[in-house]
Amino acid sequence: MAENIDSNKNDIKDKAVKDYKSAGKQSIVFKNPPYIIAEASLVGKKEGEGPLGTLFDQIIEDPMIGKDNWESAESELMKLTAQKVLTKAGLRNSDIRYLIGGDLLGQLIATSFGIAELQIPLFGVYGACSTMGEAMTIGAILVEGGFANRVLSITSSHFAGAEKQFRFPLDYGNQRPYSASWTVTGSGAVIIADHSAKKEAGEADIVITGVTSGKIVDYGIKDSMNMGAAMAPAAFETIKQNFEDFNIKPDYYDSIITGDLGYVGKNILIELLKEKDYDISDRYMDCGIEIFDQDTQDTHAGGSGCGCSAVTFAAYVIKQLKDGAWKRVLFVPTGALLSQVSFNEGNTVPGIAHAVMVEGRMS
Amino acid sequence: MAENIDSNKNDIKDKAVKDYKSAGKQSIVFKNPPYIIAEASLVGKKEGEGPLGTLFDQIIEDPMIGKDNWESAESELMKLTAQKVLTKAGLRNSDIRYLIGGDLLGQLIATSFGIAELQIPLFGVYGACSTMGEAMTIGAILVEGGFANRVLSITSSHFAGAEKQFRFPLDYGNQRPYSASWTVTGSGAVIIADHSAKKEAGEADIVITGVTSGKIVDYGIKDSMNMGAAMAPAAFETIKQNFEDFNIKPDYYDSIITGDLGYVGKNILIELLKEKDYDISDRYMDCGIEIFDQDTQDTHAGGSGCGCSAVTFAAYVIKQLKDGAWKRVLFVPTGALLSQVSFNEGNTVPGIAHAVMVEGRMS
Repeated sequence: MAENIDSNKNDIKDKAVKDYKSAGKQSIVFKNPPYIIAEASLVGKKEGEGPLGTLFDQIIEDPMIGKDNWESAESELMKLTAQKVLTKAGLRNSDIRYLIGGDLLGQLIATSFGIAELQIPLFGVYGACSTMGEAMTIGAILVEGGFANRVLSITSSHFAGAEKQFRFPLDYGNQRPYSASWTVTGSGAVIIADHSAKKEAGEADIVITGVTSGKIVDYGIKDSMNMGAAMAPAAFETIKQNFEDFNIKPDYYDSIITGDLGYVGKNILIELLKEKDYDISDRYMDCGIEIFDQDTQDTHAGGSGCGCSAVTFAAYVIKQLKDGAWKRVLFVPTGALLSQVSFNEGNTVPGIAHAVMVEGRMS
Repeated sequence: MAENIDSNKNDIKDKAVKDYKSAGKQSIVFKNPPYIIAEASLVGKKEGEGPLGTLFDQIIEDPMIGKDNWESAESELMKLTAQKVLTKAGLRNSDIRYLIGGDLLGQLIATSFGIAELQIPLFGVYGACSTMGEAMTIGAILVEGGFANRVLSITSSHFAGAEKQFRFPLDYGNQRPYSASWTVTGSGAVIIADHSAKKEAGEADIVITGVTSGKIVDYGIKDSMNMGAAMAPAAFETIKQNFEDFNIKPDYYDSIITGDLGYVGKNILIELLKEKDYDISDRYMDCGIEIFDQDTQDTHAGGSGCGCSAVTFAAYVIKQLKDGAWKRVLFVPTGALLSQVSFNEGNTVPGIAHAVMVEGRMS
């Protein structure tokens, strides 16, 4: 089996080097796959009580994180996460060439105020909850292209700040439909570099081998309380395009991981792919489903937010690859491109999904 | 003189190829400078009545642009601009590998709803009014790195949508202090490619030779009605870094062009650079100052917004380079990283500026 997988991989490489510029194609394969040399995940109390609780670098009990408003709390969370990933990599901020970061707040204020004092050249990015996929894609491109030796990709979200901005103030105590997701309070970061880092014994190198970048997909969903249904078609289009661009089947990956489709979006995605004869059901997971226990944590459709896929990737997915439990995954953060204004004006909720191909390679 | 300039340029190239990865440096020089093969600028009635009015591709008299709200109007404006730049380049949307776009509205809804139907893989970016600098930087990196043969970089802003979001509803009829800027209703776009386009006789190739990407700079300004003062220090840091990274003086450029510092920020920037023995006063312009006539258009400190630098660059700066009036410019869009929420919570207005080195090369 390993042989087949490797030959697949070589096919892909040859194919990609030849084809990746051609019109219509949405994918890139990296000839010198950039390394993820460090990762960090900081989360709130509720996330810490969830199934992945023991895996996060730090759980912060105080939802205000010592600040006096939700936005400043999220900025502080992102700052602490950036400092954590630098510490884990044994690097100073001046060792990082670019920071690629984003969040859900209007004008990215969690990012601007969070990373300002790091004094790293900043590319602010926004893809709603797909932002970590976009940040990792641009980071890998900067490294593979030789424009940077090290970049830091980071995103964050905060339950209370997101509710305040997109839905209702917490004090309003509104009823949440079962299709609604629970915005994760968390920040996840990775450092992407052009060389490997010192590894623990029996630990694999984590490399980014390729990307499939998403287009906006709009199936006309207008319910901001059902973002899973709005994002599932975007995840479908990006994953299908990844299979087609590389002429592979779901079994090329040990796991296919969406960001925050939740229980509603999960079933839609599986069905949409089945209609195209792609069955991912035996190797599919969604970060929004994994991060909370639906039965005990009252999180309805599951977790969401820029932080959801970022912390799950940093804490759980990378661990699975390092341990060799998985060899190759497709990480597909998914975003719902709405704002309170667009929703109130009766617009649809377009979706987007950015796929990143990640492998663990034992040396 | 041409010789000196060329030798300078070679110095820079050698230097950059050797140094651009080293920590602290913020600049990249492109070994195979990407071409700007087409540009487009669409603006509103007031911008059309300004000093640059005759240079824009299209002036749209209706501020609603046929839509029923300001946000949809801005989306339509961006869509028309993207279509215009594709038409001018003789390309279809499927010929574009990536679209890098952003705007000032929360969650980038002008961009999401504006370019959705183009069905081009999207990287949403946000740097407030510096966004066009960031979009052109990432676009040039994608092309130079061999990840794309053609990309489309685009930004927009709309006066009414920005006032509604950042200041007061128009109906409120608030008094505007003289330090306040006037958000430009406009959208500017460029197509960046790995090969030249067919040129008019006597027209120069427009190439992007390098970039200096900005860090967040916060001098503690808290007045959202005085964004020029908030952004000037960021422009100062980025321009100074560009001079230092390449060991050049202001006279390396025929023009140094900031995005929207306006009359207040202009003087601060000139003074800050003078303190470092850099005098740019004889070759400096600000898009926000050029786009309106302060005496007759009641625009106070000048124009601002993602669209301000984008349309001025597309309509005026590129024309100057094509005509040979200028050989080499430093284009420095400037952003104020505030939101209504951060302002209301008493936060400062951090700034950022992304510099793009652009040349006109007669073949």
